[in-house]
Amino acid sequence: MTPFKLTEELLQEIAELIDARKDDDLRDLMKEVHFADVAEIANELNEEQATYLIKLLDSDKTSDVLTELDEDVREAILNNLSSKEIAEELAELDTDDAADIIAELPKEIVQEVISEIEDREHARHIVDLLRYDENSAGGLMAKELVKVNENWTVLRCVKEMRAQAENVTRVHSIYVVDDEDKLKGRLSLKDLLTTSTTNPIKDVYIPQVDFVNVNEKPEEVAKIMSKYDLEAIPVVDEIGRLVGRITIDDIVDVIREEAEKDYQLAAGISQDVEADDSIWILTRARLPWLFLGLLGGLGAAAIMGGFEEMISKHAILFFFTPLIAAMAGNVGVQSSAIIVQGLANDDLKGSIGNRLIKEMFLALLNGFVLAVVLLFFTWFWKGTFVTALAISISLITVIVVAGIIGTFTPLFLHKRGIDPAIATGPFITTSNDIFGILIYFTIAKLLLGI
Amino acid sequence: MTPFKLTEELLQEIAELIDARKDDDLRDLMKEVHFADVAEIANELNEEQATYLIKLLDSDKTSDVLTELDEDVREAILNNLSSKEIAEELAELDTDDAADIIAELPKEIVQEVISEIEDREHARHIVDLLRYDENSAGGLMAKELVKVNENWTVLRCVKEMRAQAENVTRVHSIYVVDDEDKLKGRLSLKDLLTTSTTNPIKDVYIPQVDFVNVNEKPEEVAKIMSKYDLEAIPVVDEIGRLVGRITIDDIVDVIREEAEKDYQLAAGISQDVEADDSIWILTRARLPWLFLGLLGGLGAAAIMGGFEEMISKHAILFFFTPLIAAMAGNVGVQSSAIIVQGLANDDLKGSIGNRLIKEMFLALLNGFVLAVVLLFFTWFWKGTFVTALAISISLITVIVVAGIIGTFTPLFLHKRGIDPAIATGPFITTSNDIFGILIYFTIAKLLLGI
Repeated sequence: MTPFKLTEELLQEIAELIDARKDDDLRDLMKEVHFADVAEIANELNEEQATYLIKLLDSDKTSDVLTELDEDVREAILNNLSSKEIAEELAELDTDDAADIIAELPKEIVQEVISEIEDREHARHIVDLLRYDENSAGGLMAKELVKVNENWTVLRCVKEMRAQAENVTRVHSIYVVDDEDKLKGRLSLKDLLTTSTTNPIKDVYIPQVDFVNVNEKPEEVAKIMSKYDLEAIPVVDEIGRLVGRITIDDIVDVIREEAEKDYQLAAGISQDVEADDSIWILTRARLPWLFLGLLGGLGAAAIMGGFEEMISKHAILFFFTPLIAAMAGNVGVQSSAIIVQGLANDDLKGSIGNRLIKEMFLALLNGFVLAVVLLFFTWFWKGTFVTALAISISLITVIVVAGIIGTFTPLFLHKRGIDPAIATGPFITTSNDIFGILIYFTIAKLLLGI
Repeated sequence: MTPFKLTEELLQEIAELIDARKDDDLRDLMKEVHFADVAEIANELNEEQATYLIKLLDSDKTSDVLTELDEDVREAILNNLSSKEIAEELAELDTDDAADIIAELPKEIVQEVISEIEDREHARHIVDLLRYDENSAGGLMAKELVKVNENWTVLRCVKEMRAQAENVTRVHSIYVVDDEDKLKGRLSLKDLLTTSTTNPIKDVYIPQVDFVNVNEKPEEVAKIMSKYDLEAIPVVDEIGRLVGRITIDDIVDVIREEAEKDYQLAAGISQDVEADDSIWILTRARLPWLFLGLLGGLGAAAIMGGFEEMISKHAILFFFTPLIAAMAGNVGVQSSAIIVQGLANDDLKGSIGNRLIKEMFLALLNGFVLAVVLLFFTWFWKGTFVTALAISISLITVIVVAGIIGTFTPLFLHKRGIDPAIATGPFITTSNDIFGILIYFTIAKLLLGI
């Protein structure tokens, strides 16, 4: 399969067909194009063209296109559709995707759109989903699932299941509930292919079933599903009633977003931004961290101002401040990144004390190797062994302290319930810059006896 | 579902049961424990205990446990098992997991282990898989899949499918092939539940099917599967024959590893290390980047040495070198991270030139705001407006240059086929440190006329 590639020529051709209103040619051209690729095309068209394309194609395709569009493009297109047209799109979508789109609509029209949905059960399900916090299992789940009552026979179960399966894109598992809708267990599709139809469900279902609570955090759901290799997980409410189902494709997005967020925080970018966002959005995401860096730099300048009297005798010390600051920052970022990743994957065992001792040895080892190189360089360059020794000893000390700060900070934040990912990047770099320079000049002053 | 939590007490209890050889109690205790959790337990036991536990439990459970173990623990346990015992474990696994384990075994025993596998077809499949590069679709795929011939009737298809489904944990899709085993299309399970059994397959299958080539890179497979929301994708060889299938759970691991690798590179950690690795492994992963940082620092020191004559008149300039270096590093990391992420997600459009112009405006805007703050701080602190102005103008210039380097480098590396993720982190920080300080002192010299 050669992945679809959106070329300038294709985009041009589509835009021209739209402008010339060549509806049949357009429909023909788009027939074989996957909805995710139609979304890619619509993202690049202007608002009027994109809206025309969405209105032209069948809603069983365009509904999926809508879920894949960039948020601003979707908003613009939905603005140009009537409530009835939006309702037709939502009718084609799974309840979770439909609820996500409704949550983005202006409040005034939500009620009208919902009232235009012909399938009243679908509408009820969507309304149910709107109540859940976006950042919870309830906010991720869909209402589409196949469930059977434990008191049914396999025969009745197969019949009911066929009817339900009509509305469910991917079946995965058949969930078994009791008369109060409480989740009791599951039936696999494979069992169904091989079991005789005369058995009662009670005797054939598997009582062991993984599930999550509606209030569970998406990251936790992702951890459970990927640890236990699940492709779908049922969601229950506070009293154990089956209320929905989360499938792995939604969780893939959670994993990706989580990883991207940590990466962006480490790089000093807050908010979820992309390269194609406006300069204004990018500035809002980047400037606060740069400002933090500026404050750190001003702090470092102030500290160095306090050691100004050393400049006449030991100017060389000042030449090495960028080196000391950079090493403190690098070591801090390295050690914090390893801890943050360990916390994210839930595979940190043992006490904080042991971690700090290990990091200390690690930093001592790294610091020693680097300090020897620095010692010889400085000694040969400027010829004063004592100064070179003072700078090298400072480097080891700074690396050890930076490693300890880098290890301790994320562990501490995690203990206090704060996302440790903020501890990597500019935050740790800046504080390590200041500590590093303070330690450096203090040690130099002590050793050189100024 | 409350996720399983491995406590010290539970671990203690299990270790004691093993040491006292209380087999029945152990079996009872472990019966309800998921294999992924048994692996967590075995990772924490000593080698002798872990081996005992694996030998005690049924191989339909322990085979899955083996796939989840830490690599070093698995190696130790397999060392203590006979070829026959290993073969029994492999017999229970899907071909892809079995091949992964065989690839880790010492060469001398591979042949013996394979000859001990009773199911000869299973053994043949495993041997087939060993031929593929680990870093390709072929290395990810399993041989387990359900396929039917286009010339069969639906009735025969259902029969054959039932037999095949016995060996396939999750069916997902039924693939349709011709007499030469070439992939023609697919049947959905849902279709199967609702189609009459008298039709020939030729008339009912869906000819549109996504697939990947055996040589496709895992990252590309991940992109295709997550873009098109696929839960499984068939793999074909160079002449279009269906040779295997990749399922989404393997791809979740690829996505996670990819994200972690980029994050670690950005943090200056090469190789795939974890917090629990040995100090030696961690040093090997961290020291090279620190050494790069050291070289950068030495370069910065040498540059500053070249401006030594300025120190008597404008000592204040030297106080701001950490600030300049830090800002250059931060801006570089921010802009490169956004580009790296955009490249990873395949959503960068437009030319390199446009990106650089955008980044220049962005950097100018951010730089201007920060420079104004710096100007007033320096002016009030040291009272010389011209020096303060020189430092501030340098800051803006350095930020713009750092932003351009940060944007250009990953785009350039990507064009040359090199992983752009190495451009974030220490690499960009170090080069920006040097450029930043060089620009800073040059501009200061020009403006202050020394």
